[in-house]
Amino acid sequence: MKIAVFAGDGIGPEVTAEAVRVLHALDLPGLELIDGLVGAAAWRATGHPLPSETIAIAKASDAILFGAVGDFDCDHLERHLRPEQAILGLRRELGLFANLRPAKTIPALVGHSALRPEIASSIDLLIVRELNGDVYFGEKGMRTTPAGLRQGYDVMAYDESEVRRIAHVAFRAARARGGRLCSVDKANVLETSQLWRDVMIEVSADYPDIALEHMYVDNAAMQLVKDPGKFDVVVTGNLFGDILSDQASMCVGSIGLLASASLDANDKGLYEPIHGSAPDIAGKGIANPLATILSAAMMLRYSLGQAAAADRIEAAVDAALASGLRSGDLGGSATTRQMGDAVLEALA
Amino acid sequence: MKIAVFAGDGIGPEVTAEAVRVLHALDLPGLELIDGLVGAAAWRATGHPLPSETIAIAKASDAILFGAVGDFDCDHLERHLRPEQAILGLRRELGLFANLRPAKTIPALVGHSALRPEIASSIDLLIVRELNGDVYFGEKGMRTTPAGLRQGYDVMAYDESEVRRIAHVAFRAARARGGRLCSVDKANVLETSQLWRDVMIEVSADYPDIALEHMYVDNAAMQLVKDPGKFDVVVTGNLFGDILSDQASMCVGSIGLLASASLDANDKGLYEPIHGSAPDIAGKGIANPLATILSAAMMLRYSLGQAAAADRIEAAVDAALASGLRSGDLGGSATTRQMGDAVLEALA
Ligand SMILES: CC(C)[C@H](C(=O)O)[C@@H](O)C(=O)O
Ligand SMILES: CC(C)[C@H](C(=O)O)[C@@H](O)C(=O)O
Repeated sequence: MKIAVFAGDGIGPEVTAEAVRVLHALDLPGLELIDGLVGAAAWRATGHPLPSETIAIAKASDAILFGAVGDFDCDHLERHLRPEQAILGLRRELGLFANLRPAKTIPALVGHSALRPEIASSIDLLIVRELNGDVYFGEKGMRTTPAGLRQGYDVMAYDESEVRRIAHVAFRAARARGGRLCSVDKANVLETSQLWRDVMIEVSADYPDIALEHMYVDNAAMQLVKDPGKFDVVVTGNLFGDILSDQASMCVGSIGLLASASLDANDKGLYEPIHGSAPDIAGKGIANPLATILSAAMMLRYSLGQAAAADRIEAAVDAALASGLRSGDLGGSATTRQMGDAVLEALA
Repeated sequence: MKIAVFAGDGIGPEVTAEAVRVLHALDLPGLELIDGLVGAAAWRATGHPLPSETIAIAKASDAILFGAVGDFDCDHLERHLRPEQAILGLRRELGLFANLRPAKTIPALVGHSALRPEIASSIDLLIVRELNGDVYFGEKGMRTTPAGLRQGYDVMAYDESEVRRIAHVAFRAARARGGRLCSVDKANVLETSQLWRDVMIEVSADYPDIALEHMYVDNAAMQLVKDPGKFDVVVTGNLFGDILSDQASMCVGSIGLLASASLDANDKGLYEPIHGSAPDIAGKGIANPLATILSAAMMLRYSLGQAAAADRIEAAVDAALASGLRSGDLGGSATTRQMGDAVLEALA
């Protein structure tokens, strides 16, 4: 089991270090960890946010544990040199088209959600976000209009094969969960969404046991505030998924707790916390490492066939939270290391 | 004062009728109301959702009061015949580029919000949404890829003049309010957003008294759940504005209460509730008419120079709510007519 560890920028190295300690503590036979440079850290060392050595390490590994990328110092750089290109490039180079973002109530933290407790306590949804297409990867650039004005443009597009493969992932996920799938689009305005909706309906013929509904993205953003508990699996495109998954995660209480998996067609995957590099608190040792530790658990379950080890980590995180320990994002003052220690203790 | 009244589909005619009663009750000298057909209603009568007579009425009026459009019966129609084209066409034909969507705590309804009371009780924000550009109005269609696959595509774009004019609207609105402006984009991925951000920064030079910040749309969707009270004015593009303004409105409690204005360069405007046609409850006489009544108030204030009349309507709505009357969306059983009656009584 070869795992690439790309810690990245900001709080990335701090939170990743705790997840690595947890992985080592499991004493899994044959576990090999290989570090690689990504983001601003890679750009500083090599001049590029996603060096070819990093891509080679990723391709030679069974799974990737990813911290976070992003750094204010890089805001002035040309787009292809910015830290974000590391994660976008890995998604693209490795064909990681299926992003799974579970958002589930954590009973110990219901009081921390902005939602009323009776609403916050019944969330258990999974957002399946397409990750290789949409306006993220279409042709884009700056041009001059006939009137001589600067214009920025980005082409949004999906073809039927791209929609079909994410549809199958989502229908299968719905089958393994509550049997309900909500497809989110903006088909009343966008042709890209019309194709998306048409293909979702076509694929649904293969899954007569799954209840498929369609929702416009503006309505979905409302329903996720009003009644997130009514969703089971939500499937949507890259851009809408970016927005809705962050929104959904906040309903749970803190993004310091939420993990994500980005999978290719063979369940090889990249695992990362959904939070970013948080440069404002980087280097202080106060970031919450639980989302990254839980990402490592997802990695063991989905890409490495180690469900028992994943269960152990998740139980240890629950125990650490139940003990009352809270990092700053949860209103407490526990350090990154203290949170990691508590998980290690619960594991032992 | 010529006002075009386009009631539209679903609950549109029911809620608009109450707003018209309120306008008549004000006894404003020289007020003239002219009805016009839009949406599925227009398509049934004339074969088109936005007949040329309707456009002519709109152009000849000082302001437009709009109900809602949308009807499941039309889902099978080609895009250019669907009800939504009526509102998109009016925005485009009349150059209504500035959509103002205030979302403000209504004290009597804090308990109705999905957010915890301490968060729901301090919301007072204004979303300024660009309404004439973005992926809504770029080239779009279905095509076949070289591999023979169906592909849907939509071009997202903004040029500097489009961004500049909405920037000025937003900076001026911030000056008239709390002096803070948050521009929302996705500049880490989209060139359209990079141009948007560049122009916002350029225009900010004219408004040294306004504090401008930039936020990625995924983060904005989180912050609107976590702490909506921290926003003053938010400015964003057409697509992000569609999503975030609906989300923000839900934080207030019910979309049955929220009005919007869509203005051209001369403050001529279209006024509509932000809720849709709600076909599921249409014809039952149970829809909440307050958002449409409040839209009529915004119309009097912004396009017709009748601030005192607008104040009277808003005070009457507050009084109607304070009396405890609640329509179904607010957990009560008052009918559309009863809600309208209560506003009329308070006016008298
Ligand atoms: C960093 C950024 C490019 C990225 C995205 O938009 O996909 C992030 O927001 C995410 O959701 O993983
Ligand atoms: C009906 C639809 C085309 C419209 C939009 O997306 O602009 C609506 O959602 C709105 O926000 O007014």
